[in-house]
Amino acid sequence: MIPVMEASRLITADDVAPLARGCAVLGTGGGGDVASGALAARRAVEQYGGVPLIALGDLSPDDVILPLGMIGAPTVGHEMIHGDDQPALILREVERLLGRRPAAVMSSEIGGSNGVHPVGWAARLGLPLLDADAMGRAFPEVQMVSMHVAGLAPTVIVLADVVGNVTAVRPVDGAWAERIARAVCVAAGSSALMADYILRAAEARGALIEGTVSRAIALGRAVDGAADPLGALTAELGARNLLNGKITDLRRETTGGFARGAAVVTGVGGDRGRIITLEIQNENLVAVEDGRVLAMVPDLITVVDTQTASAVQTEGLRYGQRISVLAWPCDPLWRTPRGIEVAGPRAFGYDLDYVPVEDIP
Amino acid sequence: MIPVMEASRLITADDVAPLARGCAVLGTGGGGDVASGALAARRAVEQYGGVPLIALGDLSPDDVILPLGMIGAPTVGHEMIHGDDQPALILREVERLLGRRPAAVMSSEIGGSNGVHPVGWAARLGLPLLDADAMGRAFPEVQMVSMHVAGLAPTVIVLADVVGNVTAVRPVDGAWAERIARAVCVAAGSSALMADYILRAAEARGALIEGTVSRAIALGRAVDGAADPLGALTAELGARNLLNGKITDLRRETTGGFARGAAVVTGVGGDRGRIITLEIQNENLVAVEDGRVLAMVPDLITVVDTQTASAVQTEGLRYGQRISVLAWPCDPLWRTPRGIEVAGPRAFGYDLDYVPVEDIP
Repeated sequence: MIPVMEASRLITADDVAPLARGCAVLGTGGGGDVASGALAARRAVEQYGGVPLIALGDLSPDDVILPLGMIGAPTVGHEMIHGDDQPALILREVERLLGRRPAAVMSSEIGGSNGVHPVGWAARLGLPLLDADAMGRAFPEVQMVSMHVAGLAPTVIVLADVVGNVTAVRPVDGAWAERIARAVCVAAGSSALMADYILRAAEARGALIEGTVSRAIALGRAVDGAADPLGALTAELGARNLLNGKITDLRRETTGGFARGAAVVTGVGGDRGRIITLEIQNENLVAVEDGRVLAMVPDLITVVDTQTASAVQTEGLRYGQRISVLAWPCDPLWRTPRGIEVAGPRAFGYDLDYVPVEDIP
Repeated sequence: MIPVMEASRLITADDVAPLARGCAVLGTGGGGDVASGALAARRAVEQYGGVPLIALGDLSPDDVILPLGMIGAPTVGHEMIHGDDQPALILREVERLLGRRPAAVMSSEIGGSNGVHPVGWAARLGLPLLDADAMGRAFPEVQMVSMHVAGLAPTVIVLADVVGNVTAVRPVDGAWAERIARAVCVAAGSSALMADYILRAAEARGALIEGTVSRAIALGRAVDGAADPLGALTAELGARNLLNGKITDLRRETTGGFARGAAVVTGVGGDRGRIITLEIQNENLVAVEDGRVLAMVPDLITVVDTQTASAVQTEGLRYGQRISVLAWPCDPLWRTPRGIEVAGPRAFGYDLDYVPVEDIP
């Protein structure tokens, strides 16, 4: 019997909360305000209906995929402008530029609010959502995307700000893309919706991280009503629990639009006597114990509440909080030489050779 | 006998120097480095051939006019990038966005370097130059253009920076256009070529200031070898000579990308005993004597060398220099209520009601 392709499923309002929980875990401490993203997505789905979640294989080679993400500081209520909205402005501009209506929305970044917002954007636009993203996690810079690692050139970046200005940039390379997009975003009140690395389905294979939306929903569902939420999440992630402990020191500063800092976690219970330091640049990037690195970017490091297994974002860290530090492997794409170059420890200024988390004794 | 429309003339390398002299006069102290503009234009004309100078009436209603101007700090040698160039990048993007090749280049700003550069840009692009501009002089801000005064909406602004990045902005209004274009320009090294208020010939009548290229050339030619250059220029402009004098005090500061300051001119010869102060914001905006305003923006005030009648730009003013201060009427468009609102004295922060220069006793 010939295997039948699984029918695309519909993301409903009931899926939004588990998706948001999963996206928060994949955000590794960063990724913006997940709760507002969930609120906006839920409202849009209630108003415009559920969103078909499709696989890359469901698209025809010429179909255009529209990757979307907020850059800057996303805020509830900022999403709507003058009865029109940012996703519609971007869609219209992309149609103008490409002469073709995109066939699906994709999350640029599954980690954090940008993982859950696209459900709402797809609902508004009446488009399906592709079960994929460009990071498999959260990253702070425009060029830290799978398409760049795969060698695709940025063609045109389209930004729509909260005021309604629409800007299309054809950058000479990814670094200029980042620089100009950031400048436009700052000029427009530090928040904009962005479509970057708009691509055809034919060039997407190997250039996206597939299955991440359904994975995020599965992560959220795994802890739902579990007797041992932390155990359930760790198992679903295939993660190591580096430490159960509490925050005993916290240093954070915001420079150049990035939150930098470190958190010291002191072990409790069976981990008493151990101390782990987390190096943070928006996301948790490196976990160190006694000068020994236990996990490093691009592998994922997330702080969760020990009782509920809810992800704790960097800005939510509090002195004395009981937390667990989980670490697990990133997508294989990030472990290629080019992946390491784009988003390995040295891309963030750490003088470390990348070692996969599962290879660290 | 039916009058025959004058055949379009060709701008040759020999026209560049007089054009540059005229543009410097119309620059009212601002408008960038006219000498580099002349050098670049002359080279382009020598390489690509002369540029037909056409009138608005020579265009068909659907023809697209491409207004071009540098924003930021233009520098020689920055114009060319990677064998391609900024005008070609802009032309290509405009063709993509409009689905139509522009029929003519136009200077956005006849005053200063942006009045002479377009000859070179048109030569490179193989397009004629329209005998018109959007200011009839120089102004510092993106929205201070005739199309805005005439009530045309900015549609899309296209910027190409020296690196080769191309950015297209659809602003919600002129103020946002200014803000975003400036941000992109600063991100790209503070210099970019910009196409703004791209328009069809059908909507251009009354929304452009016509005849300004040929006028600038005529101004330059008028002083060429004249026995009395100052008298010849004053007559050709229909200007008042407010004062023959010397610079006795000079105050300049650069804030927010603008040169602000004042120059005190003390009369010599027949004007001995008189003192005029020029208020400057990039351009010469107000001339005051004993608390009495003698001329004010949008009318034109230019400082020229008394002997040669060459325009002296703000950055070229020197203590003790023998100069004459000329003032003459702006285009009638700037004297409409909306023209005064956009670029009258209050638009520059002066608490003055506009009085035409020729009505001041």
